Amino acid sequence: MDRGSGRPLYAQLVADFREKIRTGEWPPGGQLPSERELCTLFAVSRITVRRAIEIGEREGLLHRVHGVGTFAARAPMEQALDRLHSFEQTLAQRGLVASTSVHAATVTVSDLAQSSVLRLDPAAPVTNLQLIGRGDDEPIVFYDSYFPPDVGEEMTAAARRAHEAGTPFSTLDLYRDQAGTRPDRLEQAFEAIVADRRLAGLLSIPEGWPILQVTSVISSAGRPVEYRIACYRGDRYRFAVDRSLPAFS
Amino acid sequence: MDRGSGRPLYAQLVADFREKIRTGEWPPGGQLPSERELCTLFAVSRITVRRAIEIGEREGLLHRVHGVGTFAARAPMEQALDRLHSFEQTLAQRGLVASTSVHAATVTVSDLAQSSVLRLDPAAPVTNLQLIGRGDDEPIVFYDSYFPPDVGEEMTAAARRAHEAGTPFSTLDLYRDQAGTRPDRLEQAFEAIVADRRLAGLLSIPEGWPILQVTSVISSAGRPVEYRIACYRGDRYRFAVDRSLPAFS
Repeated sequence: MDRGSGRPLYAQLVADFREKIRTGEWPPGGQLPSERELCTLFAVSRITVRRAIEIGEREGLLHRVHGVGTFAARAPMEQALDRLHSFEQTLAQRGLVASTSVHAATVTVSDLAQSSVLRLDPAAPVTNLQLIGRGDDEPIVFYDSYFPPDVGEEMTAAARRAHEAGTPFSTLDLYRDQAGTRPDRLEQAFEAIVADRRLAGLLSIPEGWPILQVTSVISSAGRPVEYRIACYRGDRYRFAVDRSLPAFS
Repeated sequence: MDRGSGRPLYAQLVADFREKIRTGEWPPGGQLPSERELCTLFAVSRITVRRAIEIGEREGLLHRVHGVGTFAARAPMEQALDRLHSFEQTLAQRGLVASTSVHAATVTVSDLAQSSVLRLDPAAPVTNLQLIGRGDDEPIVFYDSYFPPDVGEEMTAAARRAHEAGTPFSTLDLYRDQAGTRPDRLEQAFEAIVADRRLAGLLSIPEGWPILQVTSVISSAGRPVEYRIACYRGDRYRFAVDRSLPAFS
C-alpha cells in the first residue's frame, strides 16, 4: 500500500487482488483469506477490505457467498439461448472437459407437478433419470428429468449407451442419439434458488450456495415428453440472450 | 393424520400443507413453523416433515431458503423473453400494483467493468441511476444502471418525471418517454447469486436470500448506452422462454 500516492487505498487493494489472481497465488475458485486476515495481510481497515471486495466482485474478479466466504472468480460457462449447443460444446468454450454420470434411473410415482406437466393421470408411473454433468471432474449441473414410461425407457437406454461410450451428454443431447422421440419445442423458466443439503451434496458445494434452476418442458408433436429441473452451480453457469428491440412507438 | 389409511404419512402431510395454504391459515409469503414445531403440530417424525417439505417445495407450494426458513410460496412474476413488457404490465399479470422509486442518481467515476462495457476511458465519469421496483409496496427488484453522461442526464430527468407523475418504470420503460436515445439492441445474461448485506437491505429480505441477477447491455445504433445490473428477488421473479427446436440431423 502506498499511502502517499493519492490513489485511494481500496483501489490499490483491488489492484493487489487482481495481481494475486493473475499470478495464481489465489487460484481460480480458491477461497480468499477472511476479511480479518486480509486486514492484517495488507495492513488496512475492515472498511477498506470490504470496499475492495465489493468492487472486486462487481468487476468479476471475486465471487462472494453469504455465510460461506469470498472466492477468486472463474469465468462462468455461458450458454446462448438462441442456439442449441451440446453440453460438451458449452463446457469446451471454457476449456473444460465435460463428462456425465447417471446418478439414478428409476420408475416412480408422479407427484402433482410431474403428472400435470406431462399430462398423465395423478400418481401415474414416470421414469426419473438423474444425471450429474461435470467439467474437469467437478460437478456443475444436476439434471432431474421425468418422462412418460415409453420415452423414459428409450432415454434411460440412450443414457447408458452414452455413458458406456464415454460421451458427455445432457438429456437434450440424448434425443439426437436414439431413434424414437423427436422433440420440437422447449419451454424454459429461469430462477435463482440456494442449495439445500441434498443439492449441496450432489454438486459438492456448501449449503446456501447460489443455484440457477432451469425448469424445462420438452415436447414432441404437441406431447410433453420430458419435465426437467436442471440445477446449475450459480458461480459456474449463466445464460445469455441477445435481442433486437422493437422500435418504441 | 390417518395412520390406518395406507396413504403414506408424508403424502397426507403435503395435503395438510396445501389445505393450510388454501384456507389462508398460512398466508402466501408467510413463514411456516419450524421443522420441530411441525413435528409437534402434526405428531409426525422429523423425517416425515422433511420429506413433506421437499415434496411441497417441488410442487411449488413451499419455498425454502437455507439458514432462513420455509415459506408458503407465491406465484412468481414471469417475464417472457420473446416479448418486451413494461415493468407495470409484468406485475399486473399477478395482480400487483407496481411502483418505482429513485434510490440514487449520481455522477461517479467508472470502474473497469463499467468503462469497458460502455467503451469509455478508464475512470471516466458515468451517471449511476439506482431504482427500486416494488409490487404492492414490497421491493422486488433493484436496478443499478450506468450511462455515459449525456444519456445519463436524459435518463435521470426522465426518471424524475415518471416518479413525479406516479408512473412505475424500469430504465427500459424510460427510453419510451424521452426524446433522445432510441435503444435497438439488448444483450442480457442471467445468473444466480445470494443477497449480501447491501442487497438484503435494499430488497427487505434476509441475507443469503436467492437473487436472480440479470446483467444487460443496452445499445443504440451500435453504441452501448446503458450497463445495467438488475437484482430480482429469486422467489418473486422468473424469466421464461419458449423455443422451437431445430430438427436433429
